[in-house]
Amino acid sequence: MAQPKQERAEQTRRALLHAAAEVFDEYGYAGASITRILKRAGVTAGALYFHFGSKEDLAKAVMNSQPETLVPLVAAGGLQRLIDLTLVWSWQLQRDPLLRAGVRLTNEQTSAEGPANADPYEKFRAIMTGYLQEAQEDGELQPGVDPAVVAEFVVAACTGMQMYSNVVSGRRDLPERTQQMWNLILPGIAVPSVITRAEATPARGAAMMP
Amino acid sequence: MAQPKQERAEQTRRALLHAAAEVFDEYGYAGASITRILKRAGVTAGALYFHFGSKEDLAKAVMNSQPETLVPLVAAGGLQRLIDLTLVWSWQLQRDPLLRAGVRLTNEQTSAEGPANADPYEKFRAIMTGYLQEAQEDGELQPGVDPAVVAEFVVAACTGMQMYSNVVSGRRDLPERTQQMWNLILPGIAVPSVITRAEATPARGAAMMP
Repeated sequence: MAQPKQERAEQTRRALLHAAAEVFDEYGYAGASITRILKRAGVTAGALYFHFGSKEDLAKAVMNSQPETLVPLVAAGGLQRLIDLTLVWSWQLQRDPLLRAGVRLTNEQTSAEGPANADPYEKFRAIMTGYLQEAQEDGELQPGVDPAVVAEFVVAACTGMQMYSNVVSGRRDLPERTQQMWNLILPGIAVPSVITRAEATPARGAAMMP
Repeated sequence: MAQPKQERAEQTRRALLHAAAEVFDEYGYAGASITRILKRAGVTAGALYFHFGSKEDLAKAVMNSQPETLVPLVAAGGLQRLIDLTLVWSWQLQRDPLLRAGVRLTNEQTSAEGPANADPYEKFRAIMTGYLQEAQEDGELQPGVDPAVVAEFVVAACTGMQMYSNVVSGRRDLPERTQQMWNLILPGIAVPSVITRAEATPARGAAMMP
């Protein structure tokens, strides 16, 4: 049975996004050629420019896809949901090309070559702020804790942890670092009962992987 | 009076390091040409290769000079000393070319072009571990807190904060982010009396600037 036109277009778009992610992950923004991306995706230049106006647009789409690789994997509620998001991130970053490329392109923005895009940070901050607001409504946070400030800090801390971890261990120690982050932050934000039952072990993250 | 030979050599080395920092800060590793560095420093290629074997060696020297731009500025003891180090960092990163270039080159290591060097992270971790051990000996830390783990996390958190801050505010909000970090971490590591007297305001950092 023939696929509807819209569905085929969406498949092509996703094939392009994933092929671009693999090439960006491997070569970085400057080293990723359009030719290589087209070859990897098995599509024409016309299809690329139909879906993405330029290499920069494609890079932005990859950068902005980071949350999609994580959010569907977390199911718990409240503060544990935020912890779980960071745990699956710490494992997915070792294997998912779309997430890896998104992080690499976001990091490369300090250098002049890459496109400047604050969206990856702000998207994660918005998602985490939502989880923390839910935690607040459920009485899991200490009085006076601002969900947006905590979310902003967790995004920053995760950004730095993956960079440091990448240089010293190729990110293999990232799940342990993530657990240590929560050991340090939870006492300043959560009520005692939540600190006791919260779980941030690497094993919990590994069990949630697809 | 003529300068001793060794002193002149040290002056040339410092002129090269600072000129290289300015050029790396502006153009990144890939974009920084030896010619431009020599012109900025006003020295010969022979002098460069006498002090630094290659552009990569020069970049490593710049990366590894980060602590020198901060440590002499902090005077307090114990945990406050660690807080002060991060406060002066949050201000110096907005203006000191040697620190800015060191951070940029360290960040660029995720891309293939730059030299891979874990020393900048490990140097800061060693310095911060020392400050935290002193805090521990003075009874400022809660029982069970591991100085090395806290130091590792603070280095990572600062790394990520400056990247996030750079994209959204050109690092102007970095002092406020640094204060927020301490608001979140102190409850998990310090004894109550230290939490009460610790000061992590942007104004405190600004007052310590040279």
